[in-house]
Amino acid sequence: MSDPITLNQRIVLASRPVGAPTPENFRMERVALPDLADGQVLLKTVFLSLDPYMRGRMSDAPSYAAPVEIGEVMTGGAVSRVERSLNPKFQEGDLVVGATGWQSHSINDGRSIIPIPALPSPSMALGVLGMPGMTAYMGLMDIGQPKAGETLVVAAASGAVGSVVGQVAKIKGLRVVGVAGGAKKCRYVVDELGFDACIDHRSPDFAEELAQACPKGIDIYYENVGGKVFDAVVPLLNPKARIPLCGLIASYNAHEAPSGPDRLPLLQRTLLTKRVRIQGFIVFDDYGDRQPEFLSAMAPWVRDGKVKFREDVVDGLEQAPDAFIGMLEGRNFGKLVVRVSRD
Amino acid sequence: MSDPITLNQRIVLASRPVGAPTPENFRMERVALPDLADGQVLLKTVFLSLDPYMRGRMSDAPSYAAPVEIGEVMTGGAVSRVERSLNPKFQEGDLVVGATGWQSHSINDGRSIIPIPALPSPSMALGVLGMPGMTAYMGLMDIGQPKAGETLVVAAASGAVGSVVGQVAKIKGLRVVGVAGGAKKCRYVVDELGFDACIDHRSPDFAEELAQACPKGIDIYYENVGGKVFDAVVPLLNPKARIPLCGLIASYNAHEAPSGPDRLPLLQRTLLTKRVRIQGFIVFDDYGDRQPEFLSAMAPWVRDGKVKFREDVVDGLEQAPDAFIGMLEGRNFGKLVVRVSRD
Repeated sequence: MSDPITLNQRIVLASRPVGAPTPENFRMERVALPDLADGQVLLKTVFLSLDPYMRGRMSDAPSYAAPVEIGEVMTGGAVSRVERSLNPKFQEGDLVVGATGWQSHSINDGRSIIPIPALPSPSMALGVLGMPGMTAYMGLMDIGQPKAGETLVVAAASGAVGSVVGQVAKIKGLRVVGVAGGAKKCRYVVDELGFDACIDHRSPDFAEELAQACPKGIDIYYENVGGKVFDAVVPLLNPKARIPLCGLIASYNAHEAPSGPDRLPLLQRTLLTKRVRIQGFIVFDDYGDRQPEFLSAMAPWVRDGKVKFREDVVDGLEQAPDAFIGMLEGRNFGKLVVRVSRD
Repeated sequence: MSDPITLNQRIVLASRPVGAPTPENFRMERVALPDLADGQVLLKTVFLSLDPYMRGRMSDAPSYAAPVEIGEVMTGGAVSRVERSLNPKFQEGDLVVGATGWQSHSINDGRSIIPIPALPSPSMALGVLGMPGMTAYMGLMDIGQPKAGETLVVAAASGAVGSVVGQVAKIKGLRVVGVAGGAKKCRYVVDELGFDACIDHRSPDFAEELAQACPKGIDIYYENVGGKVFDAVVPLLNPKARIPLCGLIASYNAHEAPSGPDRLPLLQRTLLTKRVRIQGFIVFDDYGDRQPEFLSAMAPWVRDGKVKFREDVVDGLEQAPDAFIGMLEGRNFGKLVVRVSRD
């Protein structure tokens, strides 16, 4: 007896962006899924995560991961519910997380999905307890090596990574200064998340305001944006400063080297004279084996309200391209997720 | 009874260089030294060390160390002999090492000089067993974290630091590729020091030749020059590469940011996508407490001929400015020292 036909709604890469992505780079398709084979499960996507790294996968420049090919489903992590299972490890109704992509359904052999425990919202597995939260935690702890009394600066401070970086640093006893876009986000970062200060990067006096908020200099700059925040941070770095580097959203859309002056020699000189450590990392590649350590630290903090989080939920898979384009411009407020289905 | 008058010959900073230093930036003086006070020793300089970092001290740009003031004696490490001692810890005839500067004599209270053991030549305390050797060793071992089978590249490969970096990396089982200026230095690096290859940075096909010498990419780039060597290295870096950064001789004479394109975003992207660690360090500030570890590793290697070294000895303090200017242009061949006195 054959399975009932499942129509999959999916968003594929239609063309590669030059500079900022546009809606034309994406295409919505409807296709019938094949029958399930032995060992496979049929998944129905509940929440899709939208993250800045996806911009990199849309280009075929050399990167740490293979690009999405033209016509392929856009890559992305998601929480899904098991609709049907021919795999003894999964039951109908189970919630799982995996890189199942921008689509309403997917078929999986069970090897690249993991069950998630009961959570107040399953979307937490895509944010504070998922990839962004672990990126924040591992970069801060392993490369940042925070010490009480030091000063930390983090940009995109209201976002999925920055908000966790700052709150964990507060738990560790640091002075924490956020950078965010606009007064509303800055207020949230100080009033709700408990940062010591938050500077609006749109202010004409941004560099000066950042310096005033860091009277003892900067010991850790958690780098997740690049661009002008980095430029304002460099002169404030203290000797032995550490710079964990997990993202460069400000330059993801760049398609050629900016015109001069060439700031590379100045950076090199700063690294040398101030004995700075800067280190890029990819969380699951570099720290995949430390997920239990992360969860055992973070889950209680979240449960006890010591680490708060905010989600920006968009309804409907068809909204994903616009929401993603907006995120690269800083239009989201909190961890951006798409609610793909309600049941 | 007053001491016999000692005439001190010294070289002071006459003016700050703009770009490359010139002889006019230095001035030779002769002054009478004051009488020794209780606890002091009179030192006669035997060997003066000339090192690239001194270029930084000639400028008053912010740096990790205070600049030499106009009219002050040029800073520098030296081996000296105790001529007279009013300090019970030092005997006439003792050899000591300390930052006593570009001068024929100096007076010291004994707190910033340390005795050196019997060595084949006391100048070794300024090179392979001194600051440059320890810079090579600590940067390679602590930041570079060498593993057998990996590929290391080091520039200024025939110099005081580069030659030690490469030889220690060979002892640790790495493929070692040097970069040096001219065929003679390159032959020395391969034939005498035992590097696997050495590329002449003056070659018009330098970047291509470097790539061919590193068929498995680069795992450690020991950065001590900056400039075009760095540019050729970046595309060859392997994931998880490490870059200890101890010097940037290629840009020491720069007095403004070079014209574009701006290479900083490209570097940031490389650090991120290849998960690279780059870290500046100042050997005595960062690793001063590990000198015994360094000496216990290096002294036997030197004694057994596993780490060879070459000195470029210039005779006479008055030659120091020209020799120093030449070093910044790569004219020296081996660790540059000035023999200030023969007795």
